[in-house]
Amino acid sequence: MNKNTSSSGDMSKADFRRYGYEMVDWIADYFERLEDFPVLSANAPNDLKKVLPESAPLEGESFDDIFADVEKLILPAVTHWNHPNFHGLFSTSTSAAGIFGEMLSATFDMKAMLWRTAPASTELEDVVLSWLRQMMNLPAHFEGIIYDTASVSTMHAIAAAREKLDLQIRENGMSGRTDLPLLRVYCSEQVHSSIDKAVITLGLGQKSLRKIETDAEFRMIPEKLAEAISEDRQNGYLPFCVVATVGTTSTTSIDPVEAIADICERENLWLHVDAAYAGSAAIVPELRNCLKGCERADSIVTNPHKWLFTPFDLSILYCKDLEMLKKAFSLVPEYLKTNEATAKNGMDYGIQLGRRFRSLKLWFVMRYFGQEGLIERIREHCRLTKLLASWIEKSDNWELLAPVNFALVCFRACPENVGDLNAFNEDLMNSINASGEAYISHTKLNGKFTLRLSIGSIRVEEKHIENVWNLLNKNLTI
Amino acid sequence: MNKNTSSSGDMSKADFRRYGYEMVDWIADYFERLEDFPVLSANAPNDLKKVLPESAPLEGESFDDIFADVEKLILPAVTHWNHPNFHGLFSTSTSAAGIFGEMLSATFDMKAMLWRTAPASTELEDVVLSWLRQMMNLPAHFEGIIYDTASVSTMHAIAAAREKLDLQIRENGMSGRTDLPLLRVYCSEQVHSSIDKAVITLGLGQKSLRKIETDAEFRMIPEKLAEAISEDRQNGYLPFCVVATVGTTSTTSIDPVEAIADICERENLWLHVDAAYAGSAAIVPELRNCLKGCERADSIVTNPHKWLFTPFDLSILYCKDLEMLKKAFSLVPEYLKTNEATAKNGMDYGIQLGRRFRSLKLWFVMRYFGQEGLIERIREHCRLTKLLASWIEKSDNWELLAPVNFALVCFRACPENVGDLNAFNEDLMNSINASGEAYISHTKLNGKFTLRLSIGSIRVEEKHIENVWNLLNKNLTI
Repeated sequence: MNKNTSSSGDMSKADFRRYGYEMVDWIADYFERLEDFPVLSANAPNDLKKVLPESAPLEGESFDDIFADVEKLILPAVTHWNHPNFHGLFSTSTSAAGIFGEMLSATFDMKAMLWRTAPASTELEDVVLSWLRQMMNLPAHFEGIIYDTASVSTMHAIAAAREKLDLQIRENGMSGRTDLPLLRVYCSEQVHSSIDKAVITLGLGQKSLRKIETDAEFRMIPEKLAEAISEDRQNGYLPFCVVATVGTTSTTSIDPVEAIADICERENLWLHVDAAYAGSAAIVPELRNCLKGCERADSIVTNPHKWLFTPFDLSILYCKDLEMLKKAFSLVPEYLKTNEATAKNGMDYGIQLGRRFRSLKLWFVMRYFGQEGLIERIREHCRLTKLLASWIEKSDNWELLAPVNFALVCFRACPENVGDLNAFNEDLMNSINASGEAYISHTKLNGKFTLRLSIGSIRVEEKHIENVWNLLNKNLTI
Repeated sequence: MNKNTSSSGDMSKADFRRYGYEMVDWIADYFERLEDFPVLSANAPNDLKKVLPESAPLEGESFDDIFADVEKLILPAVTHWNHPNFHGLFSTSTSAAGIFGEMLSATFDMKAMLWRTAPASTELEDVVLSWLRQMMNLPAHFEGIIYDTASVSTMHAIAAAREKLDLQIRENGMSGRTDLPLLRVYCSEQVHSSIDKAVITLGLGQKSLRKIETDAEFRMIPEKLAEAISEDRQNGYLPFCVVATVGTTSTTSIDPVEAIADICERENLWLHVDAAYAGSAAIVPELRNCLKGCERADSIVTNPHKWLFTPFDLSILYCKDLEMLKKAFSLVPEYLKTNEATAKNGMDYGIQLGRRFRSLKLWFVMRYFGQEGLIERIREHCRLTKLLASWIEKSDNWELLAPVNFALVCFRACPENVGDLNAFNEDLMNSINASGEAYISHTKLNGKFTLRLSIGSIRVEEKHIENVWNLLNKNLTI
């Protein structure tokens, strides 16, 4: 019988140390050889599937064999998010401190539904959320809760707004009722798709989401918002929530939160701010202004897993009144009743019952880098981004297509004598991505195929930006 | 300037190895001294908060200091889910292979929204889900998707059922419509609270959830289900989904899925099976029967993080028609369009866009233990549970309060001359939990305060069950 196939017990202590050390060495080497890999996996779809067995092994295997397959089979199928020339989507990165945090969370394996089942997770969550709130210069009335993703955070925010309507939707639902008007949520045309998914999930429907026109800099036009609300009220609809974005996905544009907050206060609407990406930038003193007006929001989402060197997943929802979330979701069956009367139980604030010990990795990251270390890294990303933007501006072959607010450049090639610039830029992007040397992604702005180049890796240096700039120009002339 | 406070870069390779080794050693030691700790943390609420600084440090700190605080501050605030005498809720446990999987996932830090951004995650997910499906003896038409928790899996299942109604709820929502009757979901009185939370979230409301009476063994009574559906149709309601449970949370009772499937087929209702806990048991040949009828379900949720030695979180939703989930949730904005036309993109199947590389840890676990190793462990847990149940049955001081189907015993003390058995058993539970030697939880069955003792730790041996049995009896006589 294979040694792993006993009736109980886990790996021996000696093996755990042996393979644990090997794993640590492998990871250390991985980070060193990161730039030897193509950024996007060079695999074609199903390449990995084809080489894996149809069924699980009957007998346990040696970890040596498993580990060898990581190198041989898994690694070629990895897209290297940590690569300094990963510029697609939003460039994010993990960090050693974050990895250690995940190791330890997986070890304790606590499920933080109740204070009792995970006191460390429950309390450290409050502590690191208070630390980050202070760093972002948000007022003390914001209390937070950690979820997995911004999609889930935003869904909970809109659910809390729905609950605040006091229309017994939690109890009676929305179907089969003649007393409910169409409920309306507002956001800009530039909003992230997670807002659409939230209203779909919540049963509000896509029709409930009214998208407001944006200005030349892709920011919601407050006057248009006010008009839409007024028009909707005249039509008998019920406006109840506005989602403003600080740092939209396409361009990192910043909605005018102050003007939107004025409208929300006047109209008594829940103001949710999606700062999933850009929230982290607010820890940098000279960027702090980006959250102006957000102190008046009802809820704000920010994702340390995006730009705070914390491994995925960790999304934070800050709420002015966390009790509203509890009102929307708390439901305590007999088997979860405990006698710690005053303790906060994480399960009360959302759909998920079990919750990972996510605060640990963020605590490690905040302590290891310190506020200054985090600020310096984000500041440097923004400096590199401005540098690249300046090169683009100076060149006749390239043009910026949106203002540079944080660490994303939206631009395109515009060489003379090219007829279809959209096709030209799409080809250019594909050829850069196929080279393996960098990964950039795209969006469409005013019908223009737009290249998006995001800078966010903890490993990125000026030379990497020079590399991608040279690569772009090389592909221009081919 | 502190060495961690530079403008870029992560921990040095030498430090990563040094602290990584220390982390591995610490974890190895932790598992060795596990039984020296109280199972439930002995902290009182706020004990941890009180000793942590108000704000994040300005300068980065040495990992030595951070690590020292894990031992000194975090550890006392940990509830030890891995302790072999953790018998509360459902006893779950992590494993070395699972921890290594999490280390590596946190290192790659891929977000598996698109095939392109995480080919390894996307394809390995399909592979391990096929492996587990075969082990559970489910038919090949079930295709799966990984979410974080069963709560989220079930919410997605009910959302797919809602979409299948073809009532344009995705597009038009449910508010402000006069053409929608009250939608109805059915489950037993013994259902998990996550079903309630799912209907609340989806905007169906608690009123939409009709709870069907159970029999003496806490199983849904199919005749009562049929009556309820018929009555609801007469009242103009619209039944669309039934949630059956294999392994309920209170007692691990098993709803009669075959009879329920008959009704669902006749009435054209979506059948979702909650096998979050007990699904893993189906890999054991002699327990396989517990899923009888589930081959006819539209969706089944099972959680490897519960009873398959995989660190939290990893919940699987198997669907007969995964396309229905895609129909309910897929929404591809311009910035996420890619040209891998035939590839599966995980983001299409749910609310979450980014998705962790969760399949890796399950792959490690399945390979390291093999099918036989996993089967043996679950079989042993069931053997120990039957053993404990036999001691309870033989004793005049104790009585079983529910059938033992898997690895949970529902029972209570019933010594002579005790007036209020409920208060007596609650005190007994509290005193055992306060002792630190074991953790048991409770439920209420037919008004009786019922002790729940779950056996599921990878480290549990017969001596631990003897320990807790002695402890129970010791507390009986005090």
